[in-house]
Amino acid sequence: MSLLTDTIARIGPLDDAAAAAAQARQDTLTKPQGALGRLETLSIQMAGITGQPRPRLTNPAVVVMAADHGVARRGVSAYPSEVTPQMVLNFLNGGAAINVLARHVGARVIVVDIGVAAHLPAHPELIDRKIGMGTADFSVEPAMSRVQAQQAVEIGIACANDAIDAGADLLATGDMGIGNTTASSAVVAAITGRPVAEVTGRGTGIDDAGLARKIAVIEQALALHRPDPRDGLDVLAKVGGFEIGGLAGVILGAAARRVPVVIDGFISGAAALIACTLAPSAQPYLIAAHRSVERGHDAVFAHLDLTPLVDLGMRLGEGTGAVLGMSLCQAACKILDEMATFGEAGVSGKVEN
Amino acid sequence: MSLLTDTIARIGPLDDAAAAAAQARQDTLTKPQGALGRLETLSIQMAGITGQPRPRLTNPAVVVMAADHGVARRGVSAYPSEVTPQMVLNFLNGGAAINVLARHVGARVIVVDIGVAAHLPAHPELIDRKIGMGTADFSVEPAMSRVQAQQAVEIGIACANDAIDAGADLLATGDMGIGNTTASSAVVAAITGRPVAEVTGRGTGIDDAGLARKIAVIEQALALHRPDPRDGLDVLAKVGGFEIGGLAGVILGAAARRVPVVIDGFISGAAALIACTLAPSAQPYLIAAHRSVERGHDAVFAHLDLTPLVDLGMRLGEGTGAVLGMSLCQAACKILDEMATFGEAGVSGKVEN
Repeated sequence: MSLLTDTIARIGPLDDAAAAAAQARQDTLTKPQGALGRLETLSIQMAGITGQPRPRLTNPAVVVMAADHGVARRGVSAYPSEVTPQMVLNFLNGGAAINVLARHVGARVIVVDIGVAAHLPAHPELIDRKIGMGTADFSVEPAMSRVQAQQAVEIGIACANDAIDAGADLLATGDMGIGNTTASSAVVAAITGRPVAEVTGRGTGIDDAGLARKIAVIEQALALHRPDPRDGLDVLAKVGGFEIGGLAGVILGAAARRVPVVIDGFISGAAALIACTLAPSAQPYLIAAHRSVERGHDAVFAHLDLTPLVDLGMRLGEGTGAVLGMSLCQAACKILDEMATFGEAGVSGKVEN
Repeated sequence: MSLLTDTIARIGPLDDAAAAAAQARQDTLTKPQGALGRLETLSIQMAGITGQPRPRLTNPAVVVMAADHGVARRGVSAYPSEVTPQMVLNFLNGGAAINVLARHVGARVIVVDIGVAAHLPAHPELIDRKIGMGTADFSVEPAMSRVQAQQAVEIGIACANDAIDAGADLLATGDMGIGNTTASSAVVAAITGRPVAEVTGRGTGIDDAGLARKIAVIEQALALHRPDPRDGLDVLAKVGGFEIGGLAGVILGAAARRVPVVIDGFISGAAALIACTLAPSAQPYLIAAHRSVERGHDAVFAHLDLTPLVDLGMRLGEGTGAVLGMSLCQAACKILDEMATFGEAGVSGKVEN
């Protein structure tokens, strides 16, 4: 049995008893029932995921997977591929947005090179799991082999397991990879069946001509490879990316260990589609952090039946939205765990009309 | 010169030079320009408010004003007035939602009795500024005198000044008061001119009959008192509440000291309307934290030209949404201050097409 099939087999349903206990406790806390809205439902989901009626999530970590994309050579991004390794070094030096926001919320940043097209210097904080020097250009050949696709997902599973073994009790996904909105749009179009133009946006900020080129490249690749929308590894191999596969693995690994996993933006959304195609049972373990500006993100939410927590007009990736979401998950659990009940506080209940 | 008129006179325009410097720095940071959306615009607003190109907001505090309402006797709330003092004690014991969320984001909670209809025990954490044992029932007489209205606002100004003198560099508003959505809806209808039914909701959770009663009570009061929508003290005196006046004062006090002030939900929104009627120059100092479920909140945003940061389906008050908003304000400022620039990180810029 492979790590992938074993992990998928371990993903069970949410713990209904823990969720029911959390709901019951919410209704005794000193506030009108339901008055904390999404924070209440989120706490109940966390209870169901963890199996704990009052989960305490004290050790959040975001896994940032970095890789390059052969398709970036087709002029689909506003930035050159050399930015991918440069930004990995920025992550390691603590100067990127994800570092700042992770520090703000007290989350650990785990940086993984799963396929950056450059030799990166060894660094104690860099996890080297490079599958290759970027994917192949999927406008002319599959992005990777099926074996590599499974390898990418299994690297992600192993990273989730390592993080959880090291104490993480709340995970989030983050990405870095010039060209990866192109791969993500291809994945989203393939799995959801939506027209390419409907799920393809400007990424880091291409102009109209670049956007038209990007759409044409994706349409051409889908016509060439005809990925099977019911086969996550087929879609990943033909039009995906190493980091997208890795993040799908993080999601599966977290779900198998009953750890809530907060999904960042559009690239993480594509990874979630791959993960849930491989294992529909992973869906209840997902928390969508935010609605990205990137066109196509709503198609992900619709397909996975997710509602993002916030919409702050962000479109950066790296896990920047996800770490804000992790902080809300922690807030929700603290509400459930730390608030006084009506009985404890001696507060009167509702008037009977 | 009164504290009120003096404070209003001190509210100046935002510092355009600091805001421009913040904008210029944002555009050099290692991310596509604008990719952090609202976090970027928020950081620029904070720079303009504080006059610092890279503001550091390290000492957040939420001022929770508590008071009772004579109109609560008309059966407009799902909870009895005795809940107001009970919840104040809950605040002091650290068991309420605002305590939990304030601890989560590292904010101080400042609890003020500005008119609770009960004798509260002395407590080192309770600021006693009681104007009266709740307001009068505004369905039959003005809620308070004009002198009391000014007193309420000046108490809020003094509380803001005290908090800032003690080190607070970011303030938020919070409320507690059974019946205060009724007063707030009356204030919102009076100032915005919208129909009462359009700005009146279920508060803590009244049923259909209660809602109809609530709307009728407000319509009757507005017809009886005819508050002048251009005179904030007149509206406050006739159909407002002590805590609403106090929070209006917190807003004015913060603006006069160039401290950003994060507005909570519907009651705080009514206070913001009063504050901006007294001093339109206070508007740029406001940050709307969240969109409440309470019907009528959108009328506040439209009138004040504010866009809430998040929508989490909350309707509790106490400052619960505002403290989450303060954390986002801090995150925004840290992005501006702590991220590496393209030059510092050696990251390549955009490709010239």
